[in-house]
Amino acid sequence: MTEREQNTPVQSAPAPVVAVVLAAGFGTRFDPDNPKQLVSVGGKPIVCWSIEAFERCERVTDIVVVVNEKVRATVEELIEEAGYGKVRVVIDGGAERVDSTAAALDMLAQAGIPDNAKILIHDAVRPFVAPSAIDGSIDALDQFNAATVAFASTDTILLTEDLGDRKVVKAVPERPNTFRAQTPQSFRFATIRHAYELASADPDFHPTDDTRVVVDYLPDEPVAIVAGAETNLKITTMADIPVAERIAADLTHHMTKEEAKARMHALLSGAAAQMARR
Amino acid sequence: MTEREQNTPVQSAPAPVVAVVLAAGFGTRFDPDNPKQLVSVGGKPIVCWSIEAFERCERVTDIVVVVNEKVRATVEELIEEAGYGKVRVVIDGGAERVDSTAAALDMLAQAGIPDNAKILIHDAVRPFVAPSAIDGSIDALDQFNAATVAFASTDTILLTEDLGDRKVVKAVPERPNTFRAQTPQSFRFATIRHAYELASADPDFHPTDDTRVVVDYLPDEPVAIVAGAETNLKITTMADIPVAERIAADLTHHMTKEEAKARMHALLSGAAAQMARR
Repeated sequence: MTEREQNTPVQSAPAPVVAVVLAAGFGTRFDPDNPKQLVSVGGKPIVCWSIEAFERCERVTDIVVVVNEKVRATVEELIEEAGYGKVRVVIDGGAERVDSTAAALDMLAQAGIPDNAKILIHDAVRPFVAPSAIDGSIDALDQFNAATVAFASTDTILLTEDLGDRKVVKAVPERPNTFRAQTPQSFRFATIRHAYELASADPDFHPTDDTRVVVDYLPDEPVAIVAGAETNLKITTMADIPVAERIAADLTHHMTKEEAKARMHALLSGAAAQMARR
Repeated sequence: MTEREQNTPVQSAPAPVVAVVLAAGFGTRFDPDNPKQLVSVGGKPIVCWSIEAFERCERVTDIVVVVNEKVRATVEELIEEAGYGKVRVVIDGGAERVDSTAAALDMLAQAGIPDNAKILIHDAVRPFVAPSAIDGSIDALDQFNAATVAFASTDTILLTEDLGDRKVVKAVPERPNTFRAQTPQSFRFATIRHAYELASADPDFHPTDDTRVVVDYLPDEPVAIVAGAETNLKITTMADIPVAERIAADLTHHMTKEEAKARMHALLSGAAAQMARR
């Protein structure tokens, strides 16, 4: 597919929208025997919050979940129990975040996914991603080949460098141009695939972020900012759990009729799917 | 005083350590009739938490509180009631944060403060600044003429630029070199005074941060990073209050004997000071 075609998708064949939920982290800063993606907040495992966010979005067509061997059995069981109908496959990730993304991209290529597919890569440990962030990501890919959810920094950001054994300030960028990256980070399939191909040829390649792969290896490709939220936090340490519980309580409490209906529908289809499997 | 002298302070005459607590913000994102610096968390007004952090540090010799006309009476009353013995003066700030800092620097110059004085400028709406951050700031000024408390970003930071009506990613700095600025921001008096003098001659000067003034106008002056903490948060909106209440509860609960003793001492000297005034 040429770039021209990619930028003008045929209306009659809408691009698939694939969510890749990365749940393979071992979380070294967390209890190794209780991986953070399996911890429950608001009575629900974190990984389920994340999968459900995409399960409930009507525009998402498929979900790929990336795990490690330690959590695979539990995650598969949770998916089965909840009956998430869009989860097509649970694959093994790699040692680093980037290896997990690469594994998902290889799998999608083997599955013959079209170049114009919209791929939304999401950290499972960001359980409270808003529907508006998912919709905004899908929309952004109509105009751009890459986008990332991000939240405007309320703190001034300092860029540092080392001076002896000390960090010192190198630059202070203007605050309105500083954002904290969140996920999903979204790409047309051909774009992220190409960036990863270029990156894999570079031995010094250790990114912690998919956006960086595009920014570093496809510098002419603009990456659009999609509005995130403070609540779309990344659960990194046990200290984040009380905040997460509060957000979970707020979300459950303030659920609109619309969302309650969607959730009920998801639960019912889940139950139906489970019954069908028996 | 020459630069050489400033870098080798005479041991027999220790430099004064002055905390400037900026409590003049109107907080447009907050209830205008209930300025955020006066809101109570853990049963204590935010501005009192901030003043007390410096009051309790033995190495801090003097405190200057900067207010606006709307909160002056209340803040003066709170200081009187608590008997904060190191608060020398409550002065009026300006429309912008930078005007408040400038007002404090002018006052200190008029008071004849020495060039090698250590000035710690702190946002009153960061009530939970740790003793280690204050000590670290004072120590850093033995090696550097400028320092700022900052917290390593756990999120990847994106630097953006405008592309049409959209923000797009311009650069993704390496995460270990990205910090969220906090306060106190600390300076030898001569250094911050010089930076402000240069800045005041620049009509385009609208910094939101004292560190930026030094970085922009004295680019050869390294600004050291002092370790901050997640709990040293800036209270910006009502949404921050529940988190603040949790931190306040933790701090009150985990107060060591040392801190309890220091607090009791402060309260007693406060009471004594009040009695003396009668």
